[in-house]
Amino acid sequence: METRITKLFGITKPIISGGMVWCSGWRLASAVTNAGGLGLLGAGSMHPDTLAHHIDRMNEHAHGTWGVNLPLMYPEIDAVIDLIIERGAKVVFTSAGSPKKYTARFQAAGIKVAHVVSSSRFAVKCEEAGVDAVVAEGFEAGGHNGREELTTMSLIPQVRRATSLPLIAAGGIGSGEAMLASMALGAEGVQIGTLFALSAESSAHASFKEYCISLPEDATMLALKSISPTRLARNPLFNRLAEAEARGESADVLREILGQKAAKRAIFEGDVENGEVEIGQVVAQVKRIDSVADIFKRLESEYLSALQRIQSLG
Amino acid sequence: METRITKLFGITKPIISGGMVWCSGWRLASAVTNAGGLGLLGAGSMHPDTLAHHIDRMNEHAHGTWGVNLPLMYPEIDAVIDLIIERGAKVVFTSAGSPKKYTARFQAAGIKVAHVVSSSRFAVKCEEAGVDAVVAEGFEAGGHNGREELTTMSLIPQVRRATSLPLIAAGGIGSGEAMLASMALGAEGVQIGTLFALSAESSAHASFKEYCISLPEDATMLALKSISPTRLARNPLFNRLAEAEARGESADVLREILGQKAAKRAIFEGDVENGEVEIGQVVAQVKRIDSVADIFKRLESEYLSALQRIQSLG
Repeated sequence: METRITKLFGITKPIISGGMVWCSGWRLASAVTNAGGLGLLGAGSMHPDTLAHHIDRMNEHAHGTWGVNLPLMYPEIDAVIDLIIERGAKVVFTSAGSPKKYTARFQAAGIKVAHVVSSSRFAVKCEEAGVDAVVAEGFEAGGHNGREELTTMSLIPQVRRATSLPLIAAGGIGSGEAMLASMALGAEGVQIGTLFALSAESSAHASFKEYCISLPEDATMLALKSISPTRLARNPLFNRLAEAEARGESADVLREILGQKAAKRAIFEGDVENGEVEIGQVVAQVKRIDSVADIFKRLESEYLSALQRIQSLG
Repeated sequence: METRITKLFGITKPIISGGMVWCSGWRLASAVTNAGGLGLLGAGSMHPDTLAHHIDRMNEHAHGTWGVNLPLMYPEIDAVIDLIIERGAKVVFTSAGSPKKYTARFQAAGIKVAHVVSSSRFAVKCEEAGVDAVVAEGFEAGGHNGREELTTMSLIPQVRRATSLPLIAAGGIGSGEAMLASMALGAEGVQIGTLFALSAESSAHASFKEYCISLPEDATMLALKSISPTRLARNPLFNRLAEAEARGESADVLREILGQKAAKRAIFEGDVENGEVEIGQVVAQVKRIDSVADIFKRLESEYLSALQRIQSLG
């Protein structure tokens, strides 16, 4: 399949793995790249020296284009940008900040830049900032999320009309059917989080993966709206936060309940009762831990079946 | 186009207009039926004698299958069921209640029954209750909404796997692209609310329509979660409710702020500042008031273009 996204990144399949904190290390990202997609390292949970290590492993193990997801709130942002450029990443996905500040610096080093948005208003700002592609991520996505609460079904057609940038859909894409739906809506590629977070190659803790594949369809909810909206699975920590929110508690009280490194606690250390279980709404569609190669095979086969079904409707 | 939904209802296009309170009178419903879709009357805002009047007009003006949307919390439910059966409706869409109680009664009178759900768990209950089709409605839909907050993109593939019933997608369908996406996800027809609520034939007040077509993409939000989750556009009433919710006020206080007939106030009487502006998230995609016939033409042309685009990806 050829789209502006496959051509931009020089990949054979328009499938990108989200650069997810505590999940997207070199094992996951290189497996995605080696399956023909674009694997992203999740720099958001890595100290600069850890990121350097993962980039070095990518250079050894990934046979194709790969990239780094960089939240622009990263504390040592300038050091980490130098590091990404020096170690030879070819693609950066930026999020949680303005694309205006760093895009030119990456592009001057020959790096393609995509920026993640949750509204068409921000997609237009991306175009003004000169990014190479935009990721439009809907309300159903796991982890950090937009305040507009626009779903992928609402958002993608709006972004498609607002900008001519190559467009990647994210949020709620758990099957080949949803991948085809994203392309129908106007996307030219998909970024998938939940399926890859729960893959064999994800660096998430085994207890996190086991917990997630047991979850029912109403397991996740957008929480922490007064701090930074984040999609979490319900667990004892979630319930403590929800009760505090219902009482009208301040953001400071919520931060205290959350404590330090709440995402690491659940995802990397496996404490699924007291940590933030950041996962997408499609988690209920994942009932086993598959390899990245098997996930790609399933997505392709479902996509083709759905395409045939659509064509047969006339 | 032929699907199990077009065959079930004997229609030529798999497009259903939602039976929306204060919008879906005989003018809108008959226009949808006459365009080849399935027009639904919205009984939720009609006294039995008003409904009888609208059914009589449908019998005069609709040249094809039409139906009635009946929320099962309707106060005079038994009288209104008798009336629907006696006056010759051929299709009933039920919602807001259990499909077990009334489905057999309608079917014994030769009426096809579809039930609206917000999760695959309830879709399975519909199948057990023997309904003829299921409408799966996502979080992005206007008005009353499920507590699970499942988006159309997440929900449709899940319902598709959970039941073999003919499946109609609803929520976030504002374009032919979104209609194609719904079919890609596994739906066999779509129910569209917002586009038809703002059509020329809708019985909504002109001020309501004008207000809605001016709204930006972040205009709506799911409100009233402690009473019954309802998607509303932000306005002074919405803000009073949101402030009360943020203070942790009880459902009783929210009901007092809302007052009586808050939806009628906005939709039918045009008081868009102090009434409930029930509208879907795709409202930002509607910038003019079109006739039903023009909406059908646009949906079909966008659907075909999107299908060609998808096919050309290979």
